[in-house]
Amino acid sequence: MSLTQLQVVLRARPDTALEPGHLALVETPLPEPGDGEVLVRGRWLSLDPYMLAQINGRHVTGNLEEGEVLRGEVIGEVLQSHSERWKPGDLVRGMFGWREYAVAAADALTLVPASIREPRWCLSMLGMPGLTAYAAMHWQAGLNPGETVVVAAASGAVGSMAVQLAVRSGCRVVGLVGSHEKARYVIDSLGASDCIIRWEESFAEGLDRTCPEGINVCLDLVGGAFLEAVSARLVVGGRIVLAGVQKSAMAEPLAPVLPALWIKQRARIHGLVVYDFEPRREEFLRDCVPLANEGRLVVNEEVVEGLRQAPEALVRIQAAQHAGKVVVKL
Amino acid sequence: MSLTQLQVVLRARPDTALEPGHLALVETPLPEPGDGEVLVRGRWLSLDPYMLAQINGRHVTGNLEEGEVLRGEVIGEVLQSHSERWKPGDLVRGMFGWREYAVAAADALTLVPASIREPRWCLSMLGMPGLTAYAAMHWQAGLNPGETVVVAAASGAVGSMAVQLAVRSGCRVVGLVGSHEKARYVIDSLGASDCIIRWEESFAEGLDRTCPEGINVCLDLVGGAFLEAVSARLVVGGRIVLAGVQKSAMAEPLAPVLPALWIKQRARIHGLVVYDFEPRREEFLRDCVPLANEGRLVVNEEVVEGLRQAPEALVRIQAAQHAGKVVVKL
Repeated sequence: MSLTQLQVVLRARPDTALEPGHLALVETPLPEPGDGEVLVRGRWLSLDPYMLAQINGRHVTGNLEEGEVLRGEVIGEVLQSHSERWKPGDLVRGMFGWREYAVAAADALTLVPASIREPRWCLSMLGMPGLTAYAAMHWQAGLNPGETVVVAAASGAVGSMAVQLAVRSGCRVVGLVGSHEKARYVIDSLGASDCIIRWEESFAEGLDRTCPEGINVCLDLVGGAFLEAVSARLVVGGRIVLAGVQKSAMAEPLAPVLPALWIKQRARIHGLVVYDFEPRREEFLRDCVPLANEGRLVVNEEVVEGLRQAPEALVRIQAAQHAGKVVVKL
Repeated sequence: MSLTQLQVVLRARPDTALEPGHLALVETPLPEPGDGEVLVRGRWLSLDPYMLAQINGRHVTGNLEEGEVLRGEVIGEVLQSHSERWKPGDLVRGMFGWREYAVAAADALTLVPASIREPRWCLSMLGMPGLTAYAAMHWQAGLNPGETVVVAAASGAVGSMAVQLAVRSGCRVVGLVGSHEKARYVIDSLGASDCIIRWEESFAEGLDRTCPEGINVCLDLVGGAFLEAVSARLVVGGRIVLAGVQKSAMAEPLAPVLPALWIKQRARIHGLVVYDFEPRREEFLRDCVPLANEGRLVVNEEVVEGLRQAPEALVRIQAAQHAGKVVVKL
C-alpha cells in the first residue's frame, strides 16, 4: 500500500472566465525525496490573483500548461530530510504548488523565521504581497510625510499593506475598493483617510472628491482608465507604481495625452515585479515583523478549508468577491 | 530722435500649422533700464521646438498670447547697467525673447562663463538642449557601459548631445532620424552605431534591425507609436525618458498593453522638464565645457542671419527641415 495525496492541475485553459471545472483534483502517490531533497507537508497554500494570469497564459513568470500542477507559495513542515540543511520539524516556505505534500531540493526552501508570531503571515503581510507593497511604497515611489497616496485594490493583500505602510509614513491615503464594506475596513482598520467605491462613482469623480490637491503617489493594480485618471491628477514630481493590470484594461486603448501628462508633471513610472526584491526580503522583515507581532500591521485573512475548496476560492478571487488575503488550510 | 529696435510678436495663433504670417515684425523704441536693471544687446537668439508648443498653446511653461513678444533664450552683451552686479561688456544669458535689445532685472541674467570657447554654445550643447540630454542620460536613465541606447531626433540639438554622451559612456547608440544625410552625420560625426530613418522603415522594423538584443535606454521625443515600439523591445530594467511628444502622436490612442509591458520589463519611465535641472547646471558644465573646448563634443549649428529671417526659420523647425541647432545672429 502506498500513501497518496491530492493535487490540483489545470485541466483546460479557459476561453473566457475560469470556472472550477477548468481545474481538476488528482490523487497521486506521495513522492519520495532523493539525495539532497526534503519531503514537506504543506500547511498553508497562498491563493493569489497572479495564478489567474498564469492560467490565462499572460504572466511574467511564464504560463501554466494544461496538465500541469498549479503553482503557489506554501508554508509547510519538513517531514523527511536527505539534506544536512534541514531537519524534520523545520517550518519552511517554498513554491510547492497546489499539493498536500511536496518534494523539494534543499535550496528551494526558505526557513520561516521563528520570530514571526503566526507563520501563515509569511504568505500575506510578511510575504510576497507585503514585500510587493513595501517595494512599491518605500523602494520605488519613496514616500514623504504629508503626501497623498492612492492605493488600488486597497482591501486586498498587497493594497492593504500599502495603505498601512503609507499611513505609517505620515501620508494621507485614499483607497480604491469595490464595496462599502471594504471601504469601512480600509478606513477603520487600516487607517486610510477616504475611499473611492468602484461602480458608485467614476475614477475621475472619486479622485477629484478625495484628492482635491492632486496625487503624489499611486500604487496601480488596475491600469487603463484608472491609470489615465490618476495621471491627469498627479502633482509635479508624482510617482506611479504599476504592479498589475486588470484583464478588462487590456482591451481599452490608453489616452494619447498620457506621455504629455507625465512630462508636464515630471512623473516617474515604475514597473514592479516582486521577485526582483527577494534579495531585500530581510530588510523588509526587520522593519515589519515587530510591527506585525505587536498588531500594528494587520491582515484580513479568509481561510479556505482544504485543497478541495481551493478551485472555487480562486474563482471568487477572479470575481473580486474575497476580502483581503485568501489562504488554503491544507 | 529715439532709437528703435525690431521684435517679433505672435499676430495670430495658427489653427493648424504655423506660417510666417502668424508672426509679425514690429519696430519699437529702445527700452530704458530702470534702477536695478540692465540694457542688453542680443547677439544670438536660440530657436527651439518648444516655441511651437508655446505658440500652439500647449507648453508646460505656459502659452503665448496674441500680441506677445515670442520668448527665447539669448546670449547678449551688457550695454548699460543700473546694477552693481553687472558692468558694460559682460557677456550674459537670459530669456530676453525675440528682440534685438532687452531690459532685464539684474537677477534675470546669468554670466556666460569665460571658460567657454564659443559663447553661442550656451544655447546648444552647453545650454538647455545639452542640459536636457545630460539630465536624461545621466541623472534620469543612468547609463551603463555596453547598454543599447535609442535616441529620437538624434541629429537635433538635444538628440545629438544625447548620442555623444551615451557613446562617451560606452553605450551602443541607435538614432532615429528623418533622412540619410542626418543618419550619416549621426553615425560619422556623433559616433552612433546605427540609425533608423523614419518614413523608410517602420519603427518596429527599424528597432528589430538595429536592436536585436533589445533596448536598455530610450530618449523619447516622439511619443505615440514610437513609444509603443520601444516599450515592446525594452529589456528587463529598461528606462525611457519622455522629453517631448510630437503633435501627431497626441491624436493616436496608445496600445492598452503598454503598462503590462512596463511591468514585465520592470521599466522606469521619467517625464523630463529641463528647468528642474537648472540648479545642477554647474555640475553639467564642469563635465562638458572641457570636452566642448577640445572638440570632443560637437554641435551642428545652422545660423540664421537676423531677426527678419527668424519666422521662416521657425517654420522650417516645424517641418523638421533644419539640421541640428538653429541660432539667430541678431
